[in-house]
Amino acid sequence: MYTYRFYNDYSEGAHPRLLELLASTNDQQEDGYGNDALSQQATALLQHALAQPAAAVHFVSGGTQANLVVLAALLKPYESVIAAQTAHINVHEAGAIEATGHKIHGVATPDGKLTPAMIQAVVAHHTDEHMVKPRVVFISHATELGTVYSKRELEALAQVCRDNGLYLHLDGARLGPALASAATDVALPDLARLVDVLCIGGTKNGALFGEAIAITTPALQENFRYHMKQHGALLAKGRVLGAQFVGLFRDDLSLALARHANALAARLADGLRQQGVRFLVPVMTNQLFPILPTTLIRTLQEHYGFYVWTPVDATHAAIRLVTSWATPEASVDAFLRAVQP
Amino acid sequence: MYTYRFYNDYSEGAHPRLLELLASTNDQQEDGYGNDALSQQATALLQHALAQPAAAVHFVSGGTQANLVVLAALLKPYESVIAAQTAHINVHEAGAIEATGHKIHGVATPDGKLTPAMIQAVVAHHTDEHMVKPRVVFISHATELGTVYSKRELEALAQVCRDNGLYLHLDGARLGPALASAATDVALPDLARLVDVLCIGGTKNGALFGEAIAITTPALQENFRYHMKQHGALLAKGRVLGAQFVGLFRDDLSLALARHANALAARLADGLRQQGVRFLVPVMTNQLFPILPTTLIRTLQEHYGFYVWTPVDATHAAIRLVTSWATPEASVDAFLRAVQP
Amino acid sequence: MYTYRFYNDYSEGAHPRLLELLASTNDQQEDGYGNDALSQQATALLQHALAQPAAAVHFVSGGTQANLVVLAALLKPYESVIAAQTAHINVHEAGAIEATGHKIHGVATPDGKLTPAMIQAVVAHHTDEHMVKPRVVFISHATELGTVYSKRELEALAQVCRDNGLYLHLDGARLGPALASAATDVALPDLARLVDVLCIGGTKNGALFGEAIAITTPALQENFRYHMKQHGALLAKGRVLGAQFVGLFRDDLSLALARHANALAARLADGLRQQGVRFLVPVMTNQLFPILPTTLIRTLQEHYGFYVWTPVDATHAAIRLVTSWATPEASVDAFLRAVQP
Amino acid sequence: MYTYRFYNDYSEGAHPRLLELLASTNDQQEDGYGNDALSQQATALLQHALAQPAAAVHFVSGGTQANLVVLAALLKPYESVIAAQTAHINVHEAGAIEATGHKIHGVATPDGKLTPAMIQAVVAHHTDEHMVKPRVVFISHATELGTVYSKRELEALAQVCRDNGLYLHLDGARLGPALASAATDVALPDLARLVDVLCIGGTKNGALFGEAIAITTPALQENFRYHMKQHGALLAKGRVLGAQFVGLFRDDLSLALARHANALAARLADGLRQQGVRFLVPVMTNQLFPILPTTLIRTLQEHYGFYVWTPVDATHAAIRLVTSWATPEASVDAFLRAVQP
Repeated sequence: MYTYRFYNDYSEGAHPRLLELLASTNDQQEDGYGNDALSQQATALLQHALAQPAAAVHFVSGGTQANLVVLAALLKPYESVIAAQTAHINVHEAGAIEATGHKIHGVATPDGKLTPAMIQAVVAHHTDEHMVKPRVVFISHATELGTVYSKRELEALAQVCRDNGLYLHLDGARLGPALASAATDVALPDLARLVDVLCIGGTKNGALFGEAIAITTPALQENFRYHMKQHGALLAKGRVLGAQFVGLFRDDLSLALARHANALAARLADGLRQQGVRFLVPVMTNQLFPILPTTLIRTLQEHYGFYVWTPVDATHAAIRLVTSWATPEASVDAFLRAVQP
Repeated sequence: MYTYRFYNDYSEGAHPRLLELLASTNDQQEDGYGNDALSQQATALLQHALAQPAAAVHFVSGGTQANLVVLAALLKPYESVIAAQTAHINVHEAGAIEATGHKIHGVATPDGKLTPAMIQAVVAHHTDEHMVKPRVVFISHATELGTVYSKRELEALAQVCRDNGLYLHLDGARLGPALASAATDVALPDLARLVDVLCIGGTKNGALFGEAIAITTPALQENFRYHMKQHGALLAKGRVLGAQFVGLFRDDLSLALARHANALAARLADGLRQQGVRFLVPVMTNQLFPILPTTLIRTLQEHYGFYVWTPVDATHAAIRLVTSWATPEASVDAFLRAVQP
Repeated sequence: MYTYRFYNDYSEGAHPRLLELLASTNDQQEDGYGNDALSQQATALLQHALAQPAAAVHFVSGGTQANLVVLAALLKPYESVIAAQTAHINVHEAGAIEATGHKIHGVATPDGKLTPAMIQAVVAHHTDEHMVKPRVVFISHATELGTVYSKRELEALAQVCRDNGLYLHLDGARLGPALASAATDVALPDLARLVDVLCIGGTKNGALFGEAIAITTPALQENFRYHMKQHGALLAKGRVLGAQFVGLFRDDLSLALARHANALAARLADGLRQQGVRFLVPVMTNQLFPILPTTLIRTLQEHYGFYVWTPVDATHAAIRLVTSWATPEASVDAFLRAVQP
Repeated sequence: MYTYRFYNDYSEGAHPRLLELLASTNDQQEDGYGNDALSQQATALLQHALAQPAAAVHFVSGGTQANLVVLAALLKPYESVIAAQTAHINVHEAGAIEATGHKIHGVATPDGKLTPAMIQAVVAHHTDEHMVKPRVVFISHATELGTVYSKRELEALAQVCRDNGLYLHLDGARLGPALASAATDVALPDLARLVDVLCIGGTKNGALFGEAIAITTPALQENFRYHMKQHGALLAKGRVLGAQFVGLFRDDLSLALARHANALAARLADGLRQQGVRFLVPVMTNQLFPILPTTLIRTLQEHYGFYVWTPVDATHAAIRLVTSWATPEASVDAFLRAVQP
């Protein structure tokens, strides 16, 4: 068994406060399918956090489910979505978006982020009915590489979307660490104002499971629950999702957990940097991609769980380390000692 | 607020033993997506309970999700599914099965149960490539009307399926109450032997959420997880589903909870019968459909939550009452007193 | 070989005038995909015939293709279509509509026609997001049983659609014979005014192949060609479809051909009636369903091609006879003689 | 009006011999949906030409339809197709393949051709159920750029497919010019032996419309007509397709027409080359991409129809010229004179 697993940020169960909330509300009889008091309370907390009192808020079980329901709802049959080539929907959702009938334009990008020019290029190439019609821009914040957008970058994306009649959808499976990141000035109300739809991840930030979908653009709110139900995303005991988001967004627990994850990532990055280690991309959130000798990697793998991300040269590879709300300082420090020659 | 809600069997949270299991395993670091120790333990418990050591077992969040993933996996694009007109997939899943591309033949049936003759009739009418090709028979046990199949009935269905090259899929969203029912002699190993795929409901039998899918026919097991992932049904913290099914299938908790639900339904039925009340269909599990004067129904609605199912004549309607693992005797007795003139 | 085949109205090639038009325009260089001069001319002729100068007109290869493209364009993912249980889309299109993701509500009807009450009943049962949302009413004129709607009946259907926010789509695979029928007072401009979308069949009325789709409701016209292309319905040499509809709608050829088909059907029906033969449904167009002794049927099958439609009693069955623009009087008279005892 | 249009190879109607065949067989009564004598005769001619007496042969209306039906038949829901980034299915079919639920891996390639290494790279990246599973390799012969495969190249592709459990599907919308090309040694029986499915284009080689689909791998032949019907690809008067393919494959008309198209392209290329014009890719079939000054292009556009393909530098662009079975020598020579300074 491993001393510690840095595989991902969903290796543990839930933050104890969420378990307590589930237990303390367990005996209440509630309406099903998200029409319960807890989901209503969570909705109000999120509307407040987003500074969007009229946002429609829905809770679903997982990130792939959130993405496929949102895109099924936003796109007409002949419309498509623009995303980074490395985007979760383009690589790691087993064709879920195509299974709902839609093409993804996977755009090459070095850091997992899209730029206005990339979007313009796709739009410019799709001119008539022999081709699909791009309609949604899909971005992740943080990205698959742990990078984040600045407010200025997001404003530019929102502008290019408005100019081209595109919707902007933000996948926030790791939104917590992005909001807690020192590398960006974007706050949650900024996001909510700039995008049309927004997912707020619970699974990777201390919940047993659960993602919130916030739809800020009124025209996109209608009949969304039909789409959810059709894809099996309307949980009978929606209270379980509601309770967890109440827990996450009451007293800023969500932010506190993300700060912990980021702090531990920074501690890890600092420690590695002091040993002369370089990184594949700058460390901005709770994912880091240090470049290590492959011989060292093999030794580390005996005691620590992590993925080898990509070879860098003949003798080095980048690995992926992920910290979470649950990562202990001691595990980080032990790992740093293990790296030391 | 209602004195008690008989709306359904998922108004409360989870049985305390399941919450305890979640708490006691919370700190373990586990692999994601169902590859965790708890899911493996639950799989072994289910294989044992089914007497099918080679069954493939998967855990998903809800019943609609289970049905759509199973049917997407079993059917070729031009193949269809035969189900009762009242079946959940035909009425209450917002077109989830059609959304994966498949026609449902909704067959009229008085008690929610299919017979070999009904299946033969559909097969006989579909003869060439201008029509879809029926391939799966979908049954529910218990049905939407709370009725159950006998072993003999199920054997006859299995036979007609074998004779016609059809798969038999059993939706057990309310399998617990069906197995605990005095109205049938079918045990879980019988079911597992007679069907090709089987869903075992957790949500309506004491879990926070979760359905188990057991695939007993080896040819149908291959690459099933691809279908799950594509439909957003692969939960990142699969441990949460695993833990709950460990709890339900350890020490026969599942059966005990279902027995409680059935016993309370029987108590309710007996009490009503003693007051001369008749029923729309025989009471076999934890759903009952008593026929009451509409004036009385209105009075009862002031204090109790339940659905009015269907008008019966000018002055009477059938209502639906559902009991659960959590229903207190006192609530049943109070309801019975409220019915009394 | 058969003396004559009454199987259907597409056993022969095309009316010679259409072949001549194809030949006489063959050398012109034209734009592809329906942007040719012939398609434009055909569009103008149809807009005039429909008395709908702003109708969008498109040409596709076949009837199933027309229906699936129209319904894919009209329906959101969770929306459904109401049709007769015997409707082509419900039985004879191999699940084409479900393959685009949509449920069909197959409504039982004795003569293949829908009534406002049938539509109301389906709408009334679909109340929330656990169910699909009916959005299109699909009717055939003539129906699969050769019956036609009166103007009054169609107005009532149009009214119930307007009242319930439903679109009305008319499948006119056999529209020619319906318009030429003495059994109805509905003219083409009436239809065009009352429905939202309308298909005008060429294949069964003298063309090599081809159906016209006329969209009269402006909101449904946008981007329709994207749907066509996505389903492989945009023919490269759209001129071939255009030329044929020019031929059919110039000098009322279409109507003349349908009148011939109906006249021959009437001649056949009259002859049979004089011999005491009864019919399954009244003869209104070019399909007739006489009820004959099964022994006689077997004898007739030695020399004539036709389908046995349905058993009527122990010794009788209804057969289907279809006449067409190409049916010779002599063949009808020979058949009548063969029936005579 | 243009002196001549080099837009594409489907600007004219059909070769006269095909029109004659349609006329001479017009009065025969035939079975519908491809079960007619002409389709049977065409099937036999194609099986002979392919040297595959057991190949299943089907006729459909167009190329997009052929591709979407074939891929819908070959792929399970979670399976994907590897194609050139420039492939017709990836760019010019309005998302038809995604609309049947499948991801396309668009691989960058300079000349429209795939190599074994490109395929290996995609396969190597798709390792588990979080990703789609590549299952079909889609190649075009000739490609969108008019290039063709050599026998050796095709054998290597077939080998990498066999090694990786992939099917090989060849889109032959322009198969005629490819087979007639001097730039390759691949004959039709070679293709038929090396691929699993093969489309043989009629539309771009002298037919009014129509593509033949030949399935040589027995396991892929079953129930293919269901897929056709479900996508509206089963033409009622299949005889029209059958007759045209009889015409094309009797007396090698198909090859003669393609040779004409290629010869005219070569004449055009030679004439341009003599004037010092360079080409974007080598001229192998009936499409050529000469690089011309943009000023000259504007002048030429006044009299000739063609597409500007891509800018090459500040003052030059590549245009696309397409010749066909119907292109007169005189038009080619006139164009060459117009280019001359």
